[in-house]
Amino acid sequence: MRMQIGTFLARRLKETGVRHVFGVPGDFNLSFLEQIQDAPGIEFVGNCNELNAAYAADGYARTSGLAAFVTTFGVGDLAAIGGIAGAYAENVPVVHITGAPPLHAINSGALVHHTLVDGDYENIGRCMSEFTVAQARITPANAAYEIDRILRSCWLERRPVHLQLPSDVTHIVVEVPDTPLVLADPASDPGQLRVAVQRIVEALDAARAPVLLVDAEADRFGVTELVVRIAEKCAIPCASLMPAKGAIDETSRHYIGSYAGAASAASVRHVVENTDCLIGVGLRFTDSSTALFSQRINMESFIDLRRHDLSIGTKQMPGVTLRDVLTGVLMNAKPVSRPPASELPATANLTDPAPVSADEPLTHATLWPQVSRFLQPGDVIVGEAGTAHAALVSMSLPAGATYIAAPTWGAVGFSLPALFGSHVGASSRRHLLFIGDGSFQFTAQELSSILRRDLKPVIFLLNNGGYTIERMILGENSAYNDVDNWRYTDLARAFDRRDRSLSLEVRTVGELGAALARVESADCLVFVELNLPKMDAPALLKQFAGRLAQFDYGEFGPRNSPPAVAQGAEAPAPRAHGERLGA
Amino acid sequence: MRMQIGTFLARRLKETGVRHVFGVPGDFNLSFLEQIQDAPGIEFVGNCNELNAAYAADGYARTSGLAAFVTTFGVGDLAAIGGIAGAYAENVPVVHITGAPPLHAINSGALVHHTLVDGDYENIGRCMSEFTVAQARITPANAAYEIDRILRSCWLERRPVHLQLPSDVTHIVVEVPDTPLVLADPASDPGQLRVAVQRIVEALDAARAPVLLVDAEADRFGVTELVVRIAEKCAIPCASLMPAKGAIDETSRHYIGSYAGAASAASVRHVVENTDCLIGVGLRFTDSSTALFSQRINMESFIDLRRHDLSIGTKQMPGVTLRDVLTGVLMNAKPVSRPPASELPATANLTDPAPVSADEPLTHATLWPQVSRFLQPGDVIVGEAGTAHAALVSMSLPAGATYIAAPTWGAVGFSLPALFGSHVGASSRRHLLFIGDGSFQFTAQELSSILRRDLKPVIFLLNNGGYTIERMILGENSAYNDVDNWRYTDLARAFDRRDRSLSLEVRTVGELGAALARVESADCLVFVELNLPKMDAPALLKQFAGRLAQFDYGEFGPRNSPPAVAQGAEAPAPRAHGERLGA
Repeated sequence: MRMQIGTFLARRLKETGVRHVFGVPGDFNLSFLEQIQDAPGIEFVGNCNELNAAYAADGYARTSGLAAFVTTFGVGDLAAIGGIAGAYAENVPVVHITGAPPLHAINSGALVHHTLVDGDYENIGRCMSEFTVAQARITPANAAYEIDRILRSCWLERRPVHLQLPSDVTHIVVEVPDTPLVLADPASDPGQLRVAVQRIVEALDAARAPVLLVDAEADRFGVTELVVRIAEKCAIPCASLMPAKGAIDETSRHYIGSYAGAASAASVRHVVENTDCLIGVGLRFTDSSTALFSQRINMESFIDLRRHDLSIGTKQMPGVTLRDVLTGVLMNAKPVSRPPASELPATANLTDPAPVSADEPLTHATLWPQVSRFLQPGDVIVGEAGTAHAALVSMSLPAGATYIAAPTWGAVGFSLPALFGSHVGASSRRHLLFIGDGSFQFTAQELSSILRRDLKPVIFLLNNGGYTIERMILGENSAYNDVDNWRYTDLARAFDRRDRSLSLEVRTVGELGAALARVESADCLVFVELNLPKMDAPALLKQFAGRLAQFDYGEFGPRNSPPAVAQGAEAPAPRAHGERLGA
Repeated sequence: MRMQIGTFLARRLKETGVRHVFGVPGDFNLSFLEQIQDAPGIEFVGNCNELNAAYAADGYARTSGLAAFVTTFGVGDLAAIGGIAGAYAENVPVVHITGAPPLHAINSGALVHHTLVDGDYENIGRCMSEFTVAQARITPANAAYEIDRILRSCWLERRPVHLQLPSDVTHIVVEVPDTPLVLADPASDPGQLRVAVQRIVEALDAARAPVLLVDAEADRFGVTELVVRIAEKCAIPCASLMPAKGAIDETSRHYIGSYAGAASAASVRHVVENTDCLIGVGLRFTDSSTALFSQRINMESFIDLRRHDLSIGTKQMPGVTLRDVLTGVLMNAKPVSRPPASELPATANLTDPAPVSADEPLTHATLWPQVSRFLQPGDVIVGEAGTAHAALVSMSLPAGATYIAAPTWGAVGFSLPALFGSHVGASSRRHLLFIGDGSFQFTAQELSSILRRDLKPVIFLLNNGGYTIERMILGENSAYNDVDNWRYTDLARAFDRRDRSLSLEVRTVGELGAALARVESADCLVFVELNLPKMDAPALLKQFAGRLAQFDYGEFGPRNSPPAVAQGAEAPAPRAHGERLGA
């Protein structure tokens, strides 16, 4: 059939499940935005700027599958590229569509705006290729197959892709396939798969104390339920690395909590580090997921399942996918009945401290137990880097809850636009955001987009007078870690002339209780400012910050004394080239 | 002498005239921020996010010379890279310093946060190299010479440079030069220079009607005064391309206005296009500076002066600098007394329309004449892309005024953080910003940084209900061009608990007069919301938008009808490879 290129792209997005396209208009993308506007079942959702659009798309993908957003060439692309890199690092499928200058300008090297006016039209694409798994510039000649290749690549790796759509080709009519695009994971090699499953089942049979350990990839490739069913069938304790927080149903009987090397609860650490058969699902041992590489994994008995291949000890097996392998293991493993490894899940809800009076000032110790009781099954919980994330990953989540964060890329300001994106796609789920004051200021304007769409999340702003996570690392009292103290509870009103929100300020334990009760009855966005001490933080963060400072600045960094220089024992002055030794 | 590497870098920045370093803290840069904090005569100025920091640095450089800002690796770098590219396109010297992961992590390919956790530490540098003229990763071995090379390159090209400072080397003591770093333009080849000056002087002598035409480069390389003096000595009319708006004193006798090809005033166009000797100073004929390449330049008699070389007709001469050539021409050219080319400067202040009553709604026609009278000599005027920039480049500026914009890169949202940066460096000059509502939302939080520092600019927000410049190009009534209508006059109060501002709303001609009078007497930041019709715009923008749509979307784009397809005359279906012609 024949179709305009832009209309075909919008149709393909719709076929992959995209119902909302984020972005910001610019002259090079307007003709495509007209086509999105006219496309059935797909809606353009504007953001305040392009980085926020990228973050919103990331958030959307977390709860809705594939996401897409549109920017204009150069200025928009580079504003968004940090969000693209984040989606790559966190393994999130995002389609980035750039409205590019017209092909005739590209081909002639014309000196147009939004470029360096040096005739180079490839620099943006080169940058994008660093953080995407596929890239293309659409032309009338390649549109019919390049669009499909790009979307397939995005889904294959669950990672961002980049597509340049020149402004003068959107309306060109080309021949395109009639059949819808179906995104599917590749099939495994049947022979390799049979052997792989057999080896894993044998390893499980022979093991005294096998363990399942999952990372974010298990979530992105949709296999967490398979993991839970294997854990149940074979009575295998199951732990997660922190980037997979919430991916496994934490109320399931065999879930034992987060493993984070030396920062793990003792019980979890004992189980994971003493297994004789560790089955990892998409593991990445990063600095932040292992408390600075303090994991202790027995590599000889390690079965490392990855998206499209695996290894068992030192044996590598390509051509087998996560889903096929786990399905095979579930079907073929012998049922085992063993009591759960530990009676007490290690990340059990924080126990309440000794009862405190209602007018006690709020602290992290008194805040999070109340928050924990406030969470409901099915909540979408968004945690910003810093104190919020550290507390939330230390807490058990209710069944069916989704946790959204960017723990690997760690870009401050991600969470507010990500909340917006997730909420646009999953409007009927309750959304909660926990974000510090310093982080909030990065992307604060996206609060207006949330209000504009009449979404009703609960936003908890942790006001501790600056970048507390940085203060814990270095510069406790340094001015560079201060941020300005806004009138946060005035912001929602300033952003929304229709006053569809409620803002509350909380300073004490009692006020928190009252605020949470008020939230339950509110039918609008609720913004809760939580006033917390400057140097108060969850235990996990305090511990991590000290280790990180040591890692970052070294033995003689600014937190420690410089090495002593003995009198007369200074290093010799550098020698010029050619100067003779001993001269 | 011996010095810690970070302390040496802070010292070098100070020696190049940097008094303020913008940026955002992150764990990889904290040890360097400690050193900036301790360095005499240099101050860290925090921004709300990294893109705003890059824009602030750009603004600072416009009025203070070299600028610097600090981000953290990966997340911060990529958030800022759009601002770096903008500084490259607009030719602004900005030093971007990244706090990088510790060298030991880089060298071992450790999987740390703020990377893609794939061991690649070069991807960020590769992106930065696309938009900077020099790059280095500082090590103890290279610090003493690489820092100087980077700073020299920045000044040499007046363009951004990028420096990675690993977090564990900041406090390493190295041997560094005692002598201060002096930034200087390179010297010209004396022989080439003599010939070049002689040829230009001869060309001027022989010319019937020579013309000087300057672009932004003349401003960046500090030669605009030389140009004015040549114009005066030789009675040569002088015009500027729009990116050089304000660079030439517009009250000078021989200044005739902006040349923009077909969009020029008829008198300017006549002079420039009929000269028999055009001396260009750093010209770049871009789409936006020439109303889509409509310039008519006689290349045979064109003398093209560039930063470090020049051409006269088809003769190329390397090794001669702008300053040396212009100085030579000024000294050697024969004085000429000729009446100015035109009695009426083409960009004379907009004449007032017929008197209107005070309760007439505000329009662009009634707004700008009042603004024009409000401007004072020495003002710094910042114009955001869109209606504001189009109006301001069409207006004569008072003597000593500086105009700041990003007309080539054209990133929306640039101007508010740029105002902040410029004002930090030039705190005693009056600063005015004109910005549309859509643009304001991109970077709105930086208003809080301006308030935090107790700066007192006047900010005019042109509220026309969305992206008016885009509506003029395509989608006049399309929802994607709408933005949410904030309570703009509540924002300054929400951002500043100390209430050091005044916010005013203007709907009529009379209210504008009252607001401008109120501004004169205010000793605080004044925020003036100007309500303007959705589809009203300065004449220049209306004209440009139509031309741009034609350029962007082509003859049969969405603004026009598709090509008619005659009955039975459709193009044949595509042939598969191998299919025989005529089969």
